Amino acid sequence: MSGRLPIPFVSQSDAASVAAWLQALRAAMPEEEILAFADLNEHQRAQCRLAIVANPDPVHLKQLPQLQWVHSVWAGVERLVADLGQSGLQITRLVDPRLAATMAEAVLAWTLYLHRDMPHYARQQQARQWQPLEYVLPEQRRVGILGLGALGQAAAGALRQARFPVMGWSRSARSVPGVQSYSGMDGLAQMLAQTDILVCLLPLTADTRGLLDATRLALLPPQAQLINFARGPIIDDAALRQVLDDGRVRHAVLDVFATEPLPPEAWPWSHPSVTVLPHCSAPTDSGTASAIVAANIRHYRQTGEIAANVDPGRGY
Amino acid sequence: MSGRLPIPFVSQSDAASVAAWLQALRAAMPEEEILAFADLNEHQRAQCRLAIVANPDPVHLKQLPQLQWVHSVWAGVERLVADLGQSGLQITRLVDPRLAATMAEAVLAWTLYLHRDMPHYARQQQARQWQPLEYVLPEQRRVGILGLGALGQAAAGALRQARFPVMGWSRSARSVPGVQSYSGMDGLAQMLAQTDILVCLLPLTADTRGLLDATRLALLPPQAQLINFARGPIIDDAALRQVLDDGRVRHAVLDVFATEPLPPEAWPWSHPSVTVLPHCSAPTDSGTASAIVAANIRHYRQTGEIAANVDPGRGY
Repeated sequence: MSGRLPIPFVSQSDAASVAAWLQALRAAMPEEEILAFADLNEHQRAQCRLAIVANPDPVHLKQLPQLQWVHSVWAGVERLVADLGQSGLQITRLVDPRLAATMAEAVLAWTLYLHRDMPHYARQQQARQWQPLEYVLPEQRRVGILGLGALGQAAAGALRQARFPVMGWSRSARSVPGVQSYSGMDGLAQMLAQTDILVCLLPLTADTRGLLDATRLALLPPQAQLINFARGPIIDDAALRQVLDDGRVRHAVLDVFATEPLPPEAWPWSHPSVTVLPHCSAPTDSGTASAIVAANIRHYRQTGEIAANVDPGRGY
Repeated sequence: MSGRLPIPFVSQSDAASVAAWLQALRAAMPEEEILAFADLNEHQRAQCRLAIVANPDPVHLKQLPQLQWVHSVWAGVERLVADLGQSGLQITRLVDPRLAATMAEAVLAWTLYLHRDMPHYARQQQARQWQPLEYVLPEQRRVGILGLGALGQAAAGALRQARFPVMGWSRSARSVPGVQSYSGMDGLAQMLAQTDILVCLLPLTADTRGLLDATRLALLPPQAQLINFARGPIIDDAALRQVLDDGRVRHAVLDVFATEPLPPEAWPWSHPSVTVLPHCSAPTDSGTASAIVAANIRHYRQTGEIAANVDPGRGY
């Protein structure tokens, strides 16, 4: 394979976003020619073996018959896996320490938001009500993290620095220093029963879709709170609404939804126990992401090795 | 002086609060007899040399003619200094590592609240508006702390762990690792001009009353934000309202006010750029505070030394 063939950037994002990605990718690998998919000529499409993608249209990818490797600039690849999992293509998702640090900051920020009862104080302000709540020490506020990969481990570290006792659950057993770890469905039930603030950082897969259903949400202690920074469909929407209506779950911070942008008529917008965020917890940094993509592509140019890190069977 | 004389607890707080303090103080020093001021007999009042106080009525303290030492269970003692500064009494204020840790947590929590634009996202939620803001790295968000005593230093440590560049200003020059330090009025102006989030932790004294006036608030960069966890009168109320109305200061988190509870008609309640908190940032822990008071009193019983730490001339 020659280094001279351009690399397409395939994305359904808006024009401004595509332009920003092209600029960052070109700056990170000036030795490569990076083109928007639409700018490839027929010969280039016929020959291209590698594509960089951000939510690509699968129809476009099918127009690249020699494609071997798809490198996403995003960490979440459930749509890629759904579209390409059976294709035999190799898939790389972004694993960026900067993204992990930003997510850890978001988890700390909104955990403190719940720990310090900021939603409650906001309601009191609207009612011009002056009433300090009893202070709870962080040592008495148990945080459970769903997902102990790069993001979950970074979040656990930030929470431990803030003196919260941290538990974590993952698909397969993991040992993380200072974190009480659980795995498997029994382990999930055990962790949920002890969790005051639940933080969801799981990838969306066939196994995690609807994982937090009515039965599992009922395992949480009374007045538990939750944060979803992963993917909307991991939590059963109707079950979540029910436990919030009942007051069994005190508050939910939701940054992700089955449909984004969240439609104007959706119930979370106006629920007094929900904080809606517009998928802003940990935006990808195009600079650091492009540097990581560039390093993987350089390694491939030099050695022929593809840094694939997605297992379609596992789903991420 | 005999160890047998009871120690009065002198406070204008409500009965429940007085009862809770008496319980905590008695648990911390079972060898002493601690009585509510009203429960002292005439002989005990005439002999008493030591009082533990929480916002005491100065009229009550004048009924203790042999009083030498007043130990507050609070960190802020501006009223004690105003009432007793000329009396020659020795004054001890609470210096509690637990309080410093709780304040550091509050500073981190509400700094992240501002850093992550939570007030803006709350307004967007009310409008059902889905619009992520551009993410700013903590390394690019300069935090300036007013006051570098025990509370300020603890707060600086928590902010540095979260990767914010931290500056600090104090009355007299201080060297704090990792903190760019300023002192004096020139130093204050220099720091304000570089501060994106200003955190006020100063004691209220003749020098700090009205310190943040219109001229000094005007030194802040456009869209700066501020947090007052110290005392209300340190910020000029009208000047603050003006810079918030103008949008020059983006948001203010106010936990303290000249009059508390904040009266229902006060403007901060309904200002869209103000978060009102009911003096909840760092509540005193009666358990750890009582243990510190007990240690100081034991030291006094054994050695006759009074652990006074308030300089009435300085004001704290």
